[in-house]
Amino acid sequence: MVLVRQEIGDVLRDFRLQKGRTLRQVAGEASVALGYLSEVERGQKEASSEILSAVADALETPLSVIMGEVSERLAVVEGLSVPLGARVPDTVPADLVSGFRPEMLARS
Amino acid sequence: MVLVRQEIGDVLRDFRLQKGRTLRQVAGEASVALGYLSEVERGQKEASSEILSAVADALETPLSVIMGEVSERLAVVEGLSVPLGARVPDTVPADLVSGFRPEMLARS
Repeated sequence: MVLVRQEIGDVLRDFRLQKGRTLRQVAGEASVALGYLSEVERGQKEASSEILSAVADALETPLSVIMGEVSERLAVVEGLSVPLGARVPDTVPADLVSGFRPEMLARS
Repeated sequence: MVLVRQEIGDVLRDFRLQKGRTLRQVAGEASVALGYLSEVERGQKEASSEILSAVADALETPLSVIMGEVSERLAVVEGLSVPLGARVPDTVPADLVSGFRPEMLARS
């Protein structure tokens, strides 16, 4: 069973780390108990809408952005989407590179 | 304060109505009490992740699609997006209509 709280927790933690903030800082600004926020981030507790709103404010991130990211990750879990990293190959195929000639750019 | 449960409730109700299903049918298939689902749809109760998952299954709609729609509506409430209906004017401006000549289509 796909659980929304697991993805919400992951996304909240990732946004927090992206902003270089500690659990203590965000919990303090959102007026949420540290242990509670930690459980939410680990997908062990459901966050109420009021707490989600307060944490989003503390992270200076719109709720729509947070839920958009949740939706994208759910799509990956549901097999409806491929993670972004997987779409771009690490190397350009050799035949594509060898077929390129600079004069192709000058044509127009 | 923007509340996620309000948007989740609206989206669940809209998807249900779109599929022509009654509250009773969806509640039955999702094994959720009718009164509870009704409160969730009205944004009065938080739906747990397990219930969201069961209702999404009953609506044959992926959770990622539901949360994607929630994200889009949140963006409108947060003033980050304009509702789709608002982007398209009800009437075509008169000068645009009068300036149109059928031969314009034949040019290419």
